[in-house]
Amino acid sequence: MHIPLDRGSETPLYRQIEMFIRQGILSGSLAPDTRLPAIRQLSRDLGVNRITIENAYAALEADNLVYSRVGSGTYVLKHEPLPPLPRAVPGAPWPLWQKEIQARSIPIRSQLPAEILATSKHPDLINFAEGIGDSQLFPSDDFRKVIQTIMRRDGISALEYGDRRGYSPLRDTISHVLATQGIQVHADNILITAGSQQAISLVAHLILSPGDVVLVESPTYSGVLNMFHLFGFKIVSVPVDQSGLQVEKLENILQLHHPKLIYTIPNFQNPTGTCLSGPRRHMLITLADRYNIPILEDDFVGDLRYEGKAQPALKALDPGGRVLYVSTFSKMLMPGLRVGFLIADGPVYDELLKLKGVNDLATSSLIQRALEAYVTVGRYQAHLRRTSAIYRRRRDAMAQAIYHYLPACVNTHIPYGGLFFWVQLPDYLSSEELLALASKEGVVFAPGLSFFPNGFEDACCFRLNFVSNPPERIEEGIRRLGIAIRKLENSQ
Amino acid sequence: MHIPLDRGSETPLYRQIEMFIRQGILSGSLAPDTRLPAIRQLSRDLGVNRITIENAYAALEADNLVYSRVGSGTYVLKHEPLPPLPRAVPGAPWPLWQKEIQARSIPIRSQLPAEILATSKHPDLINFAEGIGDSQLFPSDDFRKVIQTIMRRDGISALEYGDRRGYSPLRDTISHVLATQGIQVHADNILITAGSQQAISLVAHLILSPGDVVLVESPTYSGVLNMFHLFGFKIVSVPVDQSGLQVEKLENILQLHHPKLIYTIPNFQNPTGTCLSGPRRHMLITLADRYNIPILEDDFVGDLRYEGKAQPALKALDPGGRVLYVSTFSKMLMPGLRVGFLIADGPVYDELLKLKGVNDLATSSLIQRALEAYVTVGRYQAHLRRTSAIYRRRRDAMAQAIYHYLPACVNTHIPYGGLFFWVQLPDYLSSEELLALASKEGVVFAPGLSFFPNGFEDACCFRLNFVSNPPERIEEGIRRLGIAIRKLENSQ
Repeated sequence: MHIPLDRGSETPLYRQIEMFIRQGILSGSLAPDTRLPAIRQLSRDLGVNRITIENAYAALEADNLVYSRVGSGTYVLKHEPLPPLPRAVPGAPWPLWQKEIQARSIPIRSQLPAEILATSKHPDLINFAEGIGDSQLFPSDDFRKVIQTIMRRDGISALEYGDRRGYSPLRDTISHVLATQGIQVHADNILITAGSQQAISLVAHLILSPGDVVLVESPTYSGVLNMFHLFGFKIVSVPVDQSGLQVEKLENILQLHHPKLIYTIPNFQNPTGTCLSGPRRHMLITLADRYNIPILEDDFVGDLRYEGKAQPALKALDPGGRVLYVSTFSKMLMPGLRVGFLIADGPVYDELLKLKGVNDLATSSLIQRALEAYVTVGRYQAHLRRTSAIYRRRRDAMAQAIYHYLPACVNTHIPYGGLFFWVQLPDYLSSEELLALASKEGVVFAPGLSFFPNGFEDACCFRLNFVSNPPERIEEGIRRLGIAIRKLENSQ
Repeated sequence: MHIPLDRGSETPLYRQIEMFIRQGILSGSLAPDTRLPAIRQLSRDLGVNRITIENAYAALEADNLVYSRVGSGTYVLKHEPLPPLPRAVPGAPWPLWQKEIQARSIPIRSQLPAEILATSKHPDLINFAEGIGDSQLFPSDDFRKVIQTIMRRDGISALEYGDRRGYSPLRDTISHVLATQGIQVHADNILITAGSQQAISLVAHLILSPGDVVLVESPTYSGVLNMFHLFGFKIVSVPVDQSGLQVEKLENILQLHHPKLIYTIPNFQNPTGTCLSGPRRHMLITLADRYNIPILEDDFVGDLRYEGKAQPALKALDPGGRVLYVSTFSKMLMPGLRVGFLIADGPVYDELLKLKGVNDLATSSLIQRALEAYVTVGRYQAHLRRTSAIYRRRRDAMAQAIYHYLPACVNTHIPYGGLFFWVQLPDYLSSEELLALASKEGVVFAPGLSFFPNGFEDACCFRLNFVSNPPERIEEGIRRLGIAIRKLENSQ
């Protein structure tokens, strides 16, 4: 094949060759199934590198003009488009694999059923169902200025992948903040995550496989119950009383079920608001060590204490490598920041880091830098004091309103910290039915159901968030709740 | 027990009771194992609510001053601290479960071995090993201003959890950008993720269990190989040629191994830079449909095309619910933003959303809002054109330098888009050995090893990133590489 080449042209040689042959095919002078010259031959004929010819042929092939047969050569393709695959008509069946996934779908428990919000027509709904703090207390203007400063200071590096373990100065800050809480940890043992939810999911993935047993408190955080269900774990549970997880009942269960992990919220437990007592903390660590089971300590609001003395974190009692500790800035500062962290010592740290890497490479560098600049230890303590004072007043307002507006058949305890009251109705009343009535009165809460590993156990309990509304809204909300409870009682 | 109560005091009654008993215990007037009055009795004696007494006793128990026996009552605890658990001495063994995790640890393949960077003492190292674009091209000043505007405009909501599917206006924008690329998708079928890495990991988790077979291209993106290895999947592969995945070889492998998922990068594949030809795209969809296997299409740089005509995305050929499509703004804009997305139609979407929820709840709302404000369709296209023009010049510079400085025994193809040249040495030369020599000359690249599912297959290939350096650095880097190759040849 003779192809005229212009070696002084701006157009690369391979492109000149490609265009010559392309024209031949499109004009019909090169018929379908014509074999193009062998690459070696044409490169010799034209006096060009073999790669030049290969590039030309590849370009033609990419445009469906030629096809190559391994070991045989390159041929002109019949120039007619393949018939397109049929487009699905509306209502056409999904592929089988989708149906299989659908068939093994597991429902997610919601703290507040969407249908309640959808059907409540109340113009001024008071929401006690949230699982988070009051975002209005977050100094978003200050934080905006910090982000500005960071982006001016760090330029493009504020927006690049950083250290996969997390921004190093932020890990230092966390280690200093934790030291004030009695947890001695080196920044190298801290892994920054996308909220504590990701930290928990990394630990779960690393330590358990589908079908393995995990031990939780009953009731416990519904977000983790959802995770463990979705991941296919078998869940066994130990009940919680006023002093937290009933560790006395633990050993039997460990012997019977051999769980691979113990998940616990020792401080201001979600949803019950209780704290694990000191003796039980020691006993829990001892048992976990004896039975070779890692403890996952979720300290989501451990530093939101309004009175009383803090017990040492399980991590602070850890004789070495027994406890994985997760916490977050989300509850304290801003949920949307999505920055949590995990503490691990021993070989498990590197494995968690690998898993974090394949899950999402790294957590947003900009937010980490801004958080580090904002959260100096002193500023964190000040924010904590200020927030705690406000939350404490709200807790007291809710306690007072409960005594004042709710009938005597309702039982609760005053939490020493955290976010929640856990309320017990007489056992002939259902919190789900109450919710339906309450939403009509203009108040909603988180019914007990979603917090119990096996469902339906304690339908007469529910959770009230006392931090997310100011005192006068709290009083009004509890007043409405009282009306709803009386209506429910009268309807029985 | 008589406890004097001041009903006019600021101190709550339960606290007055708690403090009275506490003093008794600490002073020794209440001896260890003394039974405190029953709650019912004391509440009657003092004329207070039972809950008040319960709260007082719970506070004492939390502080280890009393203990309760179920059904028996509350007793004074011996006031001596439990002996602390032994602290680990340095070098003490880790718990057994940690050793087990360590024993099944899987090494992560790195695109650039850390020891190379550590040992290269070159003061002016040129890095062709990166997997990402040139962050210097990102208009970080503009983006800073956008973030300011967003935080002023949206206030606190910019920092809250948003819609779990992702910020709705951003999903709209993505749907419009994709429409310009021939992919018709509704915003409701888009799920925002923490980079495309998270999108891939969600799909992998949903569709496969440990031990299941996944089909990939060989070579392919090392970050996904690491993920699939860590997740315990069995990996089978089909080789890539100049027209992408060799779909002709696929049917045999499907029949033999029954993979649960086909992972493919049809555009400017990582690492080879090739595009899947049009006929092969149709054939791939047809085969996947026939064998009921979902396709995961990773279009990480599909819109970075410098010449030639784009083939339709597999998602654009999807007759409905067959193809899961993932892409990202990371490569085009900024890696550190950590925003990618996933397109799925059919029941699989809701399952992926659930999994995203339990993995990390949601992706940073602030960055999503900023990205939405920044990436109008017009601005995105303009940024794309500008970036593509610069990248194209860098590709041409590298192509020229390769022809000029590298010995004729080296083989490569000019990619039509994307980020990479894939270079083949004669098979008696090893890219790992070359890297050691090259790093001494002041240039590094990604050796082929980490891209092959089964390792060691094609030790004579390596990947060069042509976008992350300006042309003069590229020329100098390739010049140094040429020296290293000749040194390697002479040493054989």
